[in-house]
Amino acid sequence: MQNIFEGVPQRAAEEQIDDLLARPGLRIERIVSTGHASPEGFWYDQPLDEWVIVLRGMAGLQVEGEAEQILGSGDFIFLPSRKRHRVTFTAAEEPTVWLAVHFGNDV
Amino acid sequence: MQNIFEGVPQRAAEEQIDDLLARPGLRIERIVSTGHASPEGFWYDQPLDEWVIVLRGMAGLQVEGEAEQILGSGDFIFLPSRKRHRVTFTAAEEPTVWLAVHFGNDV
Repeated sequence: MQNIFEGVPQRAAEEQIDDLLARPGLRIERIVSTGHASPEGFWYDQPLDEWVIVLRGMAGLQVEGEAEQILGSGDFIFLPSRKRHRVTFTAAEEPTVWLAVHFGNDV
Repeated sequence: MQNIFEGVPQRAAEEQIDDLLARPGLRIERIVSTGHASPEGFWYDQPLDEWVIVLRGMAGLQVEGEAEQILGSGDFIFLPSRKRHRVTFTAAEEPTVWLAVHFGNDV
């Protein structure tokens, strides 16, 4: 893949995650969601820091203890390690393409 | 800034570079070019690895010893440290927005 929008599925059973770069302490990945959301009651609780941006589509993000945020094209957020969060929805009509940078000592 | 397209200048004398995140060993930055290019004969010769993607606009990238590449929206490239490269042009009609991830031991 040389273009992040290449081969984006219009619909898939599961979220599609592809590593664009992986190094000690750093992973850059593309995530494609097509209507996916975190299961009811599920929270991400990650050992790594994450910086993530939505490039296409739309998503709802709930950080524990904060108001739900709606992320559209270009919106980014920093999620410190162990900051619990969940995806409340992603657009049903079009793929949502995320670019996520995970970093820390444990990648 | 919460959106990478927020406050993008239509035209500026210099390229505009903003840190979106800076940590030991990692820097994520937004670069906005409005028709800028590397000066004649200038080559970037960076101590850090760089992963970079064009989000809007268009640019020409010359990596030393390789053919010039044209990068448009979504195109990304990995530039290892000390791999000399230069920007041959950026779009004149619209801003070119880059997202660059610099990493290494020396950020």
